[in-house]
Amino acid sequence: MGKVATAEVLRFMTDCLKAAGAASKAAEQQAELLIQADRMGHPSHGLNRLEMYINDILSGACHPNNEPKVLKENASTAWVDASNVLGATASHFAMDIAIKKAKETGVGWVTVKGSNHNGMAGFWAQKAADKGLIGMAFTNTSPLLAPTRSKQSALGTNPLSVVAPASQGESFYLDMATTAVAVGKIEMQRRKGEPIPHGWAQGPDGRETTDAELAFKTSCLMPLGGGEKTSGYKGFGLSAMVELFCGISSGSNYGHHVRSWSHSGAGGPANLGHCFIAVNPECFAPGFGDRLTDSIQHWRQLEPTDPNLPVLAPGDKEKKAAKETMERGTVSYVKQQIDSSAALAERLKVKPMEVIEN
Amino acid sequence: MGKVATAEVLRFMTDCLKAAGAASKAAEQQAELLIQADRMGHPSHGLNRLEMYINDILSGACHPNNEPKVLKENASTAWVDASNVLGATASHFAMDIAIKKAKETGVGWVTVKGSNHNGMAGFWAQKAADKGLIGMAFTNTSPLLAPTRSKQSALGTNPLSVVAPASQGESFYLDMATTAVAVGKIEMQRRKGEPIPHGWAQGPDGRETTDAELAFKTSCLMPLGGGEKTSGYKGFGLSAMVELFCGISSGSNYGHHVRSWSHSGAGGPANLGHCFIAVNPECFAPGFGDRLTDSIQHWRQLEPTDPNLPVLAPGDKEKKAAKETMERGTVSYVKQQIDSSAALAERLKVKPMEVIEN
Repeated sequence: MGKVATAEVLRFMTDCLKAAGAASKAAEQQAELLIQADRMGHPSHGLNRLEMYINDILSGACHPNNEPKVLKENASTAWVDASNVLGATASHFAMDIAIKKAKETGVGWVTVKGSNHNGMAGFWAQKAADKGLIGMAFTNTSPLLAPTRSKQSALGTNPLSVVAPASQGESFYLDMATTAVAVGKIEMQRRKGEPIPHGWAQGPDGRETTDAELAFKTSCLMPLGGGEKTSGYKGFGLSAMVELFCGISSGSNYGHHVRSWSHSGAGGPANLGHCFIAVNPECFAPGFGDRLTDSIQHWRQLEPTDPNLPVLAPGDKEKKAAKETMERGTVSYVKQQIDSSAALAERLKVKPMEVIEN
Repeated sequence: MGKVATAEVLRFMTDCLKAAGAASKAAEQQAELLIQADRMGHPSHGLNRLEMYINDILSGACHPNNEPKVLKENASTAWVDASNVLGATASHFAMDIAIKKAKETGVGWVTVKGSNHNGMAGFWAQKAADKGLIGMAFTNTSPLLAPTRSKQSALGTNPLSVVAPASQGESFYLDMATTAVAVGKIEMQRRKGEPIPHGWAQGPDGRETTDAELAFKTSCLMPLGGGEKTSGYKGFGLSAMVELFCGISSGSNYGHHVRSWSHSGAGGPANLGHCFIAVNPECFAPGFGDRLTDSIQHWRQLEPTDPNLPVLAPGDKEKKAAKETMERGTVSYVKQQIDSSAALAERLKVKPMEVIEN
């Protein structure tokens, strides 16, 4: 592991994106999106993703300095063409519109085509929650999920996020893939040489496997819920719902038409679809924040099955990680990540990331 | 089993509700909601529920002839007090508003307090889809779901539904509880004397059980995803999201404050919360219906793991059941249901349901 000051990671990511050709604002916004994932304990969506974005810019698959534009607008909706900019640029543009419309009409619902990976879905839902709104964010992704009964994948891990502000400094924070787990969790078991639980992934014969190596190679994730007996078709339905809100509504690539997952920038423009929703809770019953806090605090004090594992409210883990990172002022990365960042610095002729301990 | 003509079930349910004191329209709408669940192969939400509604009316917990009213309104939102009417009356009232607003602004988002059980969530989402819109429906329910790590329940099975019209007569139909399964599935295993799969329910010690009898007695369902290793916290998060949209937004009873599940009408007014959303897909990219149909038809032709079990699109099972019921013109009920309906007829002095075969 190597420790890096948070500000230094931000500096490094911004420099790399600028070296690849992104203007300052686009580079800074994308870097801020990535560091937030590292802060919240989701390293798969942090610095780890930087090279993928760089490769997409260098291959010409992503055009970071284009301008997103509104193609169609209604009192509460907008249809946006991201014009192939970085995911952060597209998502700030779209969520800003959703927030504005929610303030005017109660709801803002914006779909986006022509976009790129936009990191952690929760980042975008949080943006609306920071304005006192219920924020929601959805995105489609490359096909990795096998619909129930299918041998092949046909949908992405298609995450959904809902964030809402509560009273007493509390908030509701849900950010989840609609697969049982993301590929990263299988990779971790594989590195440890341990099996994976039932219900995570399929082997090439379409049956559940507990073999981490085989699961990793097959890359065919099971939906939330696992197999048919444990209602995996609900997770499949949720992933399909996310696609309905994203690609099917926005006219971007969708489902099986989305390019394969790759860090190399191959496969041409991603043309991903997103959906952003903001809702003003003040349009409904007064006391929203108090009822939400009452619920959150009730969940936490429930008697746990294992006294050592207290019940957590959605987002408690992420908030704890973010608080600890803020206090430390540093983020820790595995050696592999430190090494690949050093190689990237050399490749882009950027000042390498200063590592505190290696 | 006993077969009953669909029209006769409708007649019987309407008569019972009227005998209990509901006006004609309220009785007919509630009966139509229930028969649709029987048609679609979800008997738990059909005639099976009738007595519960009757008991709520007779005990004074439900006032079927009150008038729902809008308490607050914005261009795209409404906050409704159902005034304790039957769930069907409240839900028609609220979804009609959501549909109207979606036609005007692109989105209608309506929350409801002071309501009663409103049957199958999909019925309400379908109502918007019948008008060419994406329809969504959510409701809170009595606490039965144990949050991840908790020994006790704190949320309901909190269903969510999304229905959207596609081209070529296709549609997307998702209607799911956010628990792994509903109590009815455990009851079925118990009757058959068979164990339940892992990930469905907890025993009184808070641990997963496969003992159907113990699971039924404990009534502590696991969220979609099952245990923590298989991401059950996502199902918990989804159930909490539904509550956020329903009780927490509308100011009805919510979460642990909702009365216990009972068929007796005990516990006073249910004061349940619902949320209805309608979105106009024409606000976004042209070709929505074609992309949706392409996706649905792609899923169905995926190579199945078991050649005898073809891949189904969300809602295929329900549509097949509804088509078969329409063709037959009859619904079949288990003997227990036929008997309890006969007893109800006697209790309410209503003409008994005419059973074709017993």
